[in-house]
Amino acid sequence: MHTLVLTGDDIQHLARHVGLDALMDEMIARLDAALRAYSPTATTILPRRGFVYDQPAMGLLEWMPCMSDGHVNIKVVGYHPKNVRRNGLPTILATVSEYDTATGHLTCLMDGTLLTALRTGAASAVASRVMARPDARTLGLIGAGAQAVTQLHALARTFDLDEVLICDADPKAEASFAERTATVADYLPIRVTPLDEIVQEADVICTATSIDVGEGPLFNDIEPKPWAHFNAVGSDFPGKTELPLSLLRRSFVCPDSPEQAVHEGECQQLNASSIGPSLHELMQHPDQYAHVSRGLSVFDSTGWALEDHVAMNLFKEYAAALGLGTNVAIEAIQDDAQNPYHFVQAGQEAVVP
Amino acid sequence: MHTLVLTGDDIQHLARHVGLDALMDEMIARLDAALRAYSPTATTILPRRGFVYDQPAMGLLEWMPCMSDGHVNIKVVGYHPKNVRRNGLPTILATVSEYDTATGHLTCLMDGTLLTALRTGAASAVASRVMARPDARTLGLIGAGAQAVTQLHALARTFDLDEVLICDADPKAEASFAERTATVADYLPIRVTPLDEIVQEADVICTATSIDVGEGPLFNDIEPKPWAHFNAVGSDFPGKTELPLSLLRRSFVCPDSPEQAVHEGECQQLNASSIGPSLHELMQHPDQYAHVSRGLSVFDSTGWALEDHVAMNLFKEYAAALGLGTNVAIEAIQDDAQNPYHFVQAGQEAVVP
Repeated sequence: MHTLVLTGDDIQHLARHVGLDALMDEMIARLDAALRAYSPTATTILPRRGFVYDQPAMGLLEWMPCMSDGHVNIKVVGYHPKNVRRNGLPTILATVSEYDTATGHLTCLMDGTLLTALRTGAASAVASRVMARPDARTLGLIGAGAQAVTQLHALARTFDLDEVLICDADPKAEASFAERTATVADYLPIRVTPLDEIVQEADVICTATSIDVGEGPLFNDIEPKPWAHFNAVGSDFPGKTELPLSLLRRSFVCPDSPEQAVHEGECQQLNASSIGPSLHELMQHPDQYAHVSRGLSVFDSTGWALEDHVAMNLFKEYAAALGLGTNVAIEAIQDDAQNPYHFVQAGQEAVVP
Repeated sequence: MHTLVLTGDDIQHLARHVGLDALMDEMIARLDAALRAYSPTATTILPRRGFVYDQPAMGLLEWMPCMSDGHVNIKVVGYHPKNVRRNGLPTILATVSEYDTATGHLTCLMDGTLLTALRTGAASAVASRVMARPDARTLGLIGAGAQAVTQLHALARTFDLDEVLICDADPKAEASFAERTATVADYLPIRVTPLDEIVQEADVICTATSIDVGEGPLFNDIEPKPWAHFNAVGSDFPGKTELPLSLLRRSFVCPDSPEQAVHEGECQQLNASSIGPSLHELMQHPDQYAHVSRGLSVFDSTGWALEDHVAMNLFKEYAAALGLGTNVAIEAIQDDAQNPYHFVQAGQEAVVP
């Protein structure tokens, strides 16, 4: 009985072989289908829980459990905004494990870094497809870090974009963005643009910043286009918000997971009555929400375990097809299930090292 | 940046080298010290949560998070009572992972099967040392499965036992118990005894059965010795209880974690006012609870994340000393933390397999 371990190297190998565009297209298609098919009786998702701390630096470590199709997935994700500068590490580190509900066996453990970036991009694409204007041409990115790369990629696969406007508190991130996205969007002009102009000009805007708790919103009193759609990706922490309340109040606000969003998303700022349906509800009732794309809308993306479930299954399928990964016998399976000491013979002396 | 993977084989190698008695003695000593030193401001333990299901067979999968000393430990444990007969697997399968709160990095992943059996035994030993009579001579084991082996081991290391009385619903488990415990207690006479006699005769009694939800208690109207101490190990599931309410009402009941015990332990049967202090509180105020060992007492052992934290650190130390384990680069650490696609060069074609 083995555990399939898919390391970061395996995942990168997989992504190179499949191709980033094909991978993102497949991720978007599967997430779209999974959200339209989602039923809480077939799939149980528990709200993210975790530890939040401010020593040695502000951070959190959370777990996201999902049970579906005879398996439990748990993603454990760390969010440490000082990682890049302090430790040369990504802000987000993650692994996902999968267990068989027939036995409790750990069937798979994989790196979750690319998975998280990919599925977060795909979620914005799926949400924008139902909430933004289909003819959206200008994409705005507020925050040009790691998450912005897959936001751009996913939205470029979904809309016929003409132009991408970006800004970041860090000029180096602005300067390097075109190079960092050349692999997936070298055909698109990327223009570093003041934040207020991005809000005013873009059809679809993704916010993915590391703004500190209590320091939001990112802007105030700027008038977006009447049909602008926002993907609020960065608010994922109690007290952290990116969008102004005045904008939220005028917008159709759709969270991925209302339970999480009121705790750590933009919905922290709203009363329950001002919060719209969750994304899967919206997608399951398209006629009822056909008007949404004509007005202001916000997708409050806190990250939902269903997205990780879909992404993990996709990665597992590709890995199987490519023969990637290593089988490791992590769990002890004794010959005698009733004897935890089966591996020591009676009378055998301890070999003290 | 690597993850230390300690497989079941590594753990068994470790246990053989250290010796089972030395390992259990050290586990008991460290758990005792950790409980006496425990402070909720230094160590944060969240109550166990999980999924419970009845298809394809009754089972549950739970996670037990603990944050202490700059690390988070999460044990994920499966409880599948039909595993032994249906799948030839242990009832309990478990792995423990450790994360660095400075970065979110997964520092260690280890098999948790022996760890769980060992720490559950050690918890009963520590609890019995403060709640049972110091001159306890007769140990009773109701349920002679895997958990009973480490219950016997831990209690034999703690008390000067003369005799062990056992019973199990499965005659095969009764017949094999002496052989299964010969490695750790071959000097002790083990006598298969009817359940009611065990309750009447033993000084310390451990219940560790797979009794079904709603089928408890294991016995009724049997009078134990006035000083008998019970370690109720098997009640760890909503609706599953082993001891009769009449006994609990007359006993000093001390749970490992009151929050868990009222949900899935013997304390499910009690009002808050009938539940005593938690084990660490009892141990931190020995004068106040000196009387406990003279009367009936129950340790309601649901399994607490602090026990796993102590056991994991112990195993890590021994593994380091013995050079055991494998370092695996599970998490992707890109050269450019801001580019999730850093591993694909611009213009590089996808290599479709």
